[in-house]
Amino acid sequence: MSREITASILSIGDELLIGQTVNTNAAWIGGQLSLHGIRPVEVRTIGDDRATILRTLEELSGDLVLITGGLGPTKDDITKDALCEFFGTRLVRHPDVEERIVAIFNKLGRSVLDVNRAQADLPEACTVLPNHRGTASGMWFTRERVEGPTRVFVSMPGVPYEMKGMMEREVLPRAVEHFHPPSIVHRTILTTGLGESHLAERIADWEDGLAADRVKLAYLPSPGIVKLRLSTYAGAVPAEARRRVDRQAEALYEAIPDLIFGEGEDRLETVLGKLLTGNGQTLSLAESCTGGYIAHRITSVPGSSAYFTGGVVSYANAVKMEELGIPSDMLELNGAVSRPVVERMAQGVRQALRTDWSMATSGVAGPDGGTPDKPVGTVWMAVAGPEGVISRVSVFPGSREQVITRSALAAMNMLRKALLGQLVAEEGHPG
Amino acid sequence: MSREITASILSIGDELLIGQTVNTNAAWIGGQLSLHGIRPVEVRTIGDDRATILRTLEELSGDLVLITGGLGPTKDDITKDALCEFFGTRLVRHPDVEERIVAIFNKLGRSVLDVNRAQADLPEACTVLPNHRGTASGMWFTRERVEGPTRVFVSMPGVPYEMKGMMEREVLPRAVEHFHPPSIVHRTILTTGLGESHLAERIADWEDGLAADRVKLAYLPSPGIVKLRLSTYAGAVPAEARRRVDRQAEALYEAIPDLIFGEGEDRLETVLGKLLTGNGQTLSLAESCTGGYIAHRITSVPGSSAYFTGGVVSYANAVKMEELGIPSDMLELNGAVSRPVVERMAQGVRQALRTDWSMATSGVAGPDGGTPDKPVGTVWMAVAGPEGVISRVSVFPGSREQVITRSALAAMNMLRKALLGQLVAEEGHPG
Repeated sequence: MSREITASILSIGDELLIGQTVNTNAAWIGGQLSLHGIRPVEVRTIGDDRATILRTLEELSGDLVLITGGLGPTKDDITKDALCEFFGTRLVRHPDVEERIVAIFNKLGRSVLDVNRAQADLPEACTVLPNHRGTASGMWFTRERVEGPTRVFVSMPGVPYEMKGMMEREVLPRAVEHFHPPSIVHRTILTTGLGESHLAERIADWEDGLAADRVKLAYLPSPGIVKLRLSTYAGAVPAEARRRVDRQAEALYEAIPDLIFGEGEDRLETVLGKLLTGNGQTLSLAESCTGGYIAHRITSVPGSSAYFTGGVVSYANAVKMEELGIPSDMLELNGAVSRPVVERMAQGVRQALRTDWSMATSGVAGPDGGTPDKPVGTVWMAVAGPEGVISRVSVFPGSREQVITRSALAAMNMLRKALLGQLVAEEGHPG
Repeated sequence: MSREITASILSIGDELLIGQTVNTNAAWIGGQLSLHGIRPVEVRTIGDDRATILRTLEELSGDLVLITGGLGPTKDDITKDALCEFFGTRLVRHPDVEERIVAIFNKLGRSVLDVNRAQADLPEACTVLPNHRGTASGMWFTRERVEGPTRVFVSMPGVPYEMKGMMEREVLPRAVEHFHPPSIVHRTILTTGLGESHLAERIADWEDGLAADRVKLAYLPSPGIVKLRLSTYAGAVPAEARRRVDRQAEALYEAIPDLIFGEGEDRLETVLGKLLTGNGQTLSLAESCTGGYIAHRITSVPGSSAYFTGGVVSYANAVKMEELGIPSDMLELNGAVSRPVVERMAQGVRQALRTDWSMATSGVAGPDGGTPDKPVGTVWMAVAGPEGVISRVSVFPGSREQVITRSALAAMNMLRKALLGQLVAEEGHPG
C-alpha cells in the first residue's frame, strides 16, 4: 500500500469569517478528497489579508494544499499576488486566457474592463488550470522537498459552481496522477430510531469485530438519524477490500435490522418513494403537530406525485372533525394527542383520499402546551394500510423544530417498516 | 475607543473534514462575534486527534478562542482530555452537572449509561458553563499574558442548537464583560422579491450616501431573501451612532418599501403571525407544488395554532376536485397550473375551513413536468381574503428545492401585502 496522502484546505475571504457566507466549499472538497483516498487534515479560513495568506501558506501541512477564493477582479482579491511572493515568481499575461475572457464578455454583450483583462495575468511558475465556468483561472504550483512526494499547491476560484467544475475536470485527475493515493472502499449505512450513544451500546460487539477486517467506523449523527460509515484501504486487491467491508456491513444489517433504512445518499422519503412505487401503491397524510413537514419531505422527491395524492394539515380540532371525520366526543374524551384520535386521523384521510397507505401525527411540539400527563415532545404517530392501523407514542427531546423533525422521521420509519411487513402492533394494543 | 478584540474559531470533528457535515457553526459564531464588536480573524477545522488539538491550541491567535465539538459521550470525542493537558489540569466529577444529566435521561425515560455520567467529569481549572439544551457542559478557561487582556478559551458542544444557546446565554455576555469590545450599533433589514445584484442596482444611490453617516453595509443573501446589515461603531455617544443608523434605515424604507418585510430575526412566517394575531384573523392553505412547505413554515412558529386552522396538500387532481371543489372541466380546460385553478383552490379552502384568509399555490417544481408553455419553475400563487382573491404567476429559477422555497416566500409576501392593504389586482385581471 502506498503511504497516506494528506491535504489541507485554505479558504480565503472576509465574507466567510464574519458569517456572511457558509463555507460549503470546504465540506464539498473534503468529501471529494476522502473519496479519492486523500485524507483532509485541516481546513483554515482567513481574511483577504496578504500577510496572513503568506504566513498561513508557510504553516499549512499536507502533501496537497487546496486554496479557494480571492481570485475575483476586485482589489480586495489578493490571493494571486500573495502566491507570487510565496513562490518567488511574477505575473505574466497569458494571451490565450485573455482571449477567452474577452470572448465571454462579448457573448454576454458587456464591455471588457482592464480589471477583467488582468485576470489573464498569472504567475509564471504555475501551470494554469482552465476555468470552464468563469473567468478566473486556476493555478497549480509544485514545491519539492527532501522527503516525500513533491508538494502541490492549487489555487481555485471561490464561486462553488466554478470551483467544483475545476476540481472534477482538472484538480482531482491531476492529484491522483501525481500522488497515486491509496484508494478507499467505503459504505455509509443510515440508521434511525436510536441516538448516537444508545446505538453505540447496541452495536458494541459488532464494532469490536471491525478491527479483524481492518474496517474503520465513523458515527455521523444529525437530528433523528445516525449514519455509520465503514471504510478500508483498497490496497492491492480492491475486490478483497470490498469483500471485507461488505462482510461487516452484512453483520451490521443482522445486528440492527430494525434501525437501518438505507445507504449512501438515501433519505427516508426516497426510500418510501421506491417502496411505494415498487408496490404500485399510494400514500396520503393527516398531520397535526408536524404541520405539513412530512408532506414537504415526501414532495421534495422528484416524481413523488406518482404515489403521493395529498394530505390534510389539521391544526384546529374543527378541521380534524370535518375533514377527517373525528367524532367530537372522541376529541373531548381523549384529547387530540391520543391513540384513538391519531388512529382515526390516519383512517380518515386514507378513506377520504382513497389511498393504500396513510400516516398521521398528533402531538405537543412545544414550547408551550405541555401538561404533566403529556409533556412537550409527546407525539402519537399512526400508520394505516390495507391490514389496519398501528400507532405508537414517543416523547421526543429538543426544540419545537427538533420535535417536528424527529417525529416526522419516526412516522416515516413506521411506514417503511409497515411497507416491509415489519411493523407489528404492540402487546395489548392490537391496531 | 478600546483596542480591537480578535477571535479565532476552532471546530473539531472528523465529520467536518471529510465533508459529512458543513461547518455552519463557524459562520454563525463569526456573525455573532462581529455583531458584538469582536473581529474573527481565523477559523480552523481539525480532526478528533489529540496531538493536532494541542498543537492548534498553541498556534491559534486571537484574544478569544472559541472551540466547538468533540464533547460527545463516545470515545472519539477527546476535546476535554486535550484541554486538560493544554491547561495542565485534571477532570473532576461535578455532582450538580451529573444530577442534571440523570434528570434529563429520567425525563426521557431512558437509562443513564456510564459514558453519559462521564459528561459530568470536567476540568478543574475551568469555569463550567451550563448547557440548557443538552448534556455536554461548556468550559471557560483563561490564560494570562504579558501584554494585552487575559486570553479566554471556551469549549462548547458541536450540536448547533446547544452551541447557540450557550453562546447567547453564557459566552457572549461573559466575553463582552471580560473584553469590553468597542460596541457596535446595527440594524438588519430583511428584503424579499429581488436578487442581490438587482437589489444592489436599485439601492445604488442610497448606498452612496452611507459613507456620510459612517454606516457600513453588508449584503447577506439566501434563497429568496437578501438581508441588508447596517452597522457603525457606537463610539463614545451610542445614541448619536444609533441616530445615524436609524436615519439611513429610514431612507432605505423610503427607497424600497415594497421589498422590506421585517428586521433582525423576523421571518416572513413570524411577521404573518403577528399581523394575523393583531387582526384577530385566521388562515388556511391549499398547496399543490409547495407540497406542505408553506404549512410547515407557518406551523414552525410557536403559537401558530391561534391563527392557523389547517390546510390541504392537493397533489393529485382528484384531491383538488374533492377537497377543494375545483370543477373537473376547469382543470381540463386550463390545466392545474393556471389562474382559475389556483384562485379556486384559495377560495375553496377558505370556505371549507371557514378562515378569514387563505393562500394557494400550483406550479411546476421540476425537474420534470415542464412544457414550452409552462416551463419548470412556473408557479401560480393566490391569496383569498374578505375582499376577494388575487393571483400572480412567476417563473422561479433553480432546483426543485429552490422553486419550492422561492414560491413559498413569494406567496407569503403576497399575503403580507394583502394584510397591509398593499396587494392590488393587476391591470386587466380584477381579482
